[in-house]
Amino acid sequence: MARIQTLPGFHDLYPEDVLVRNYLFGIWRNLARRYGFAEFDAPLIESTDLYRKKSGEEILSQLFHFTDQGGRELALRPEITPSLARMAAARHRDYRKPIKWFEIGPCFRSEKPQRGRRREFIQFNCDIIGDDSPAADAELIALAIDLMRDLGFSAEDFHLRLSSRDAWTDFLTTEKIDPSHTPAFLAAIDKMERDPETSAKKLQQIGTKLETVQAFINAAQPPARLQQVLDDLNQRGLANYVKTDLSIVRGLAYYTGTVFEIFDAKHSMRAIAGGGRYDRLVHLISDGAADLPAVGFAMGNVVILDLIEACTEAQIRLQTHIADHSLADVFVIIADESRRPDALQTIQLLRDAGLAVDFPLTPTKFNKQFHGATAAKATVGVFIGDEFPDIKVKNLITRNERPANPTTLVDTVKEMQQDQGPLIA
Amino acid sequence: MARIQTLPGFHDLYPEDVLVRNYLFGIWRNLARRYGFAEFDAPLIESTDLYRKKSGEEILSQLFHFTDQGGRELALRPEITPSLARMAAARHRDYRKPIKWFEIGPCFRSEKPQRGRRREFIQFNCDIIGDDSPAADAELIALAIDLMRDLGFSAEDFHLRLSSRDAWTDFLTTEKIDPSHTPAFLAAIDKMERDPETSAKKLQQIGTKLETVQAFINAAQPPARLQQVLDDLNQRGLANYVKTDLSIVRGLAYYTGTVFEIFDAKHSMRAIAGGGRYDRLVHLISDGAADLPAVGFAMGNVVILDLIEACTEAQIRLQTHIADHSLADVFVIIADESRRPDALQTIQLLRDAGLAVDFPLTPTKFNKQFHGATAAKATVGVFIGDEFPDIKVKNLITRNERPANPTTLVDTVKEMQQDQGPLIA
Repeated sequence: MARIQTLPGFHDLYPEDVLVRNYLFGIWRNLARRYGFAEFDAPLIESTDLYRKKSGEEILSQLFHFTDQGGRELALRPEITPSLARMAAARHRDYRKPIKWFEIGPCFRSEKPQRGRRREFIQFNCDIIGDDSPAADAELIALAIDLMRDLGFSAEDFHLRLSSRDAWTDFLTTEKIDPSHTPAFLAAIDKMERDPETSAKKLQQIGTKLETVQAFINAAQPPARLQQVLDDLNQRGLANYVKTDLSIVRGLAYYTGTVFEIFDAKHSMRAIAGGGRYDRLVHLISDGAADLPAVGFAMGNVVILDLIEACTEAQIRLQTHIADHSLADVFVIIADESRRPDALQTIQLLRDAGLAVDFPLTPTKFNKQFHGATAAKATVGVFIGDEFPDIKVKNLITRNERPANPTTLVDTVKEMQQDQGPLIA
Repeated sequence: MARIQTLPGFHDLYPEDVLVRNYLFGIWRNLARRYGFAEFDAPLIESTDLYRKKSGEEILSQLFHFTDQGGRELALRPEITPSLARMAAARHRDYRKPIKWFEIGPCFRSEKPQRGRRREFIQFNCDIIGDDSPAADAELIALAIDLMRDLGFSAEDFHLRLSSRDAWTDFLTTEKIDPSHTPAFLAAIDKMERDPETSAKKLQQIGTKLETVQAFINAAQPPARLQQVLDDLNQRGLANYVKTDLSIVRGLAYYTGTVFEIFDAKHSMRAIAGGGRYDRLVHLISDGAADLPAVGFAMGNVVILDLIEACTEAQIRLQTHIADHSLADVFVIIADESRRPDALQTIQLLRDAGLAVDFPLTPTKFNKQFHGATAAKATVGVFIGDEFPDIKVKNLITRNERPANPTTLVDTVKEMQQDQGPLIA
């Protein structure tokens, strides 16, 4: 058996990587809470039919799917929206409308790993279900913008391209293009920016021209509903982050109405996040058992980290989070090994009081214990020596110290955590 | 295509379920931090060979495994320890010893769903790598006991059964049983409690007797090393949670030395958590590229929730956590619909200040908005009406109110969050 490696497209998360991941999780959760969203989650494995139903048989090539011992066709979820639609349909009567739910969790795609794409990645999803108003679209778009602001990005770093499929429905009617061509038409628009030649060919096959489409994009006024979304965002003071851009249609077939994507200002990367309205998905997934309008937003963990790396302010916020993280509040230094039993009792006392405590498990030289305290970024050192039950409590940054005993220790440590100096040279 | 359901052994997590899950996550993270553990994570999918290497070909029947489009044999992780061993072997030189790492994440087992067993479950793992001392064993066992205490369990609710495989190595030597029988012997001891008859037969095949084994369990003194672990726990004041019990050997083949399991006091459930020393696994997984002693502890999310349900104090702590959770700090009530633009501006102001804010997305009757505020458990109501920019800020529990304007609003809301009454009838 060959030496076992991490699989291509999958990534080990060492503690320094988890710090970065948890920074994103913290930003995501705080944002969702500010907007009044409740957290939900769904299984990581679903029936393959769930994805077939939403996206057709061709989705299978992008899925990790297999047959279990009971002969069931199972798939690792490539996204959360189909599960959400299934769950909302099953229990929507138990919740006030609009349902505002968010989710953070892994998703999987069996595709070639490349920049911005991994086979296992984490997605943050926010969805509003049971409300078909432009106000719900605006609430989600405001959330998307505030997410970028929370991460440290300004209007100079990114913009949100806002569009509506309604405009294209009107276009198709005016151009007398058969509705059966709609998916192919939208796919051509979606790829127009990256590959105009192929899109031009496809548009011609359908019975229109690249030039006609581009003229429409340049000339069209936002449809009335999109204007309502823009007005709402303007009232929130967020309009300067938004560009109306009908060339955004999003690839996925299930969107209806409002769609949007966030891009870096230089447009050097894939879309950082995106979303839109999907008013027919709950009906489709539940075979008509429920019929609820919905609008959703999703951001992955891969592209955004590339963008954070490229932006000074965003990078500073992440690095500050990492620098502020410590592995221990207190490091207990065992100055006299014969006092280890007293040290163990002291450690338990401090941990019972809620403090994060580390210490050398085995006899360790005094200097090396200090290095341990530094490595753990402990603010306070607690010295257990032969004078026990007299204990020395030292702020390891200001170097101020104070005596304590087992009764006063917790309070003394908490005071010394706050010690501001003066710094002793 | 039939109506799509959640698969057997998998579970949807509606917001009320996520509250329970996040309660566990919070307890786990806080505990791991108090003990100075750093968080890591590993891919959810690994090469099937990783599990073959650790557990042999027979593990495959318990795995979700499949072949990907590139012909690789992949498996959903049934546990984290093999990944941890792989990761530690690859990069242990970059970290101070002992490595103290924890992980929280999903695992998968393709087994029949039953009480206490799901096909997708969440595990909390803590491991100390690179330290072979009894002190490391004791540190992990103390952590396991403190976890139960944090959840609200006392020494009357649970006990930790502590054992060592060393005692059985001695026994096998004394009884002149060939070392090749060790795995079968340990499996028989492991199942002795649940199925003594089958174990008796198996022990006889190996060349010993159930009675001899039971006499050894009853008479044996803890091996010297186990006594050191007990002394350490005693110094921490945790000995009363521990029972030495050599009948605990843990099923898995890779354990060496100290092993332990936590059971409910009535012994009415499966083991709630367990762990032990596995000094040879890193060497095995890395083909000898690294050789590090290790000791680990794991708790799943399924059995513990059953036990919480059965214990008043633990149940109170969980329910208090749930009761304290609110979906919003502030509910903005739009008393005059023509003032919606001002309300949107106000909402953005409050959210920018870090407050969690909900509001009606569409025109809603005054009474129904109040119900919305109650459902979100908002402490403060902010009333936007035709007197804007004069704003009314009300504590919805004490019913005290105070006037504000856009400039003073954030401070007034923060004051009113803390308002203590007197309660107005």
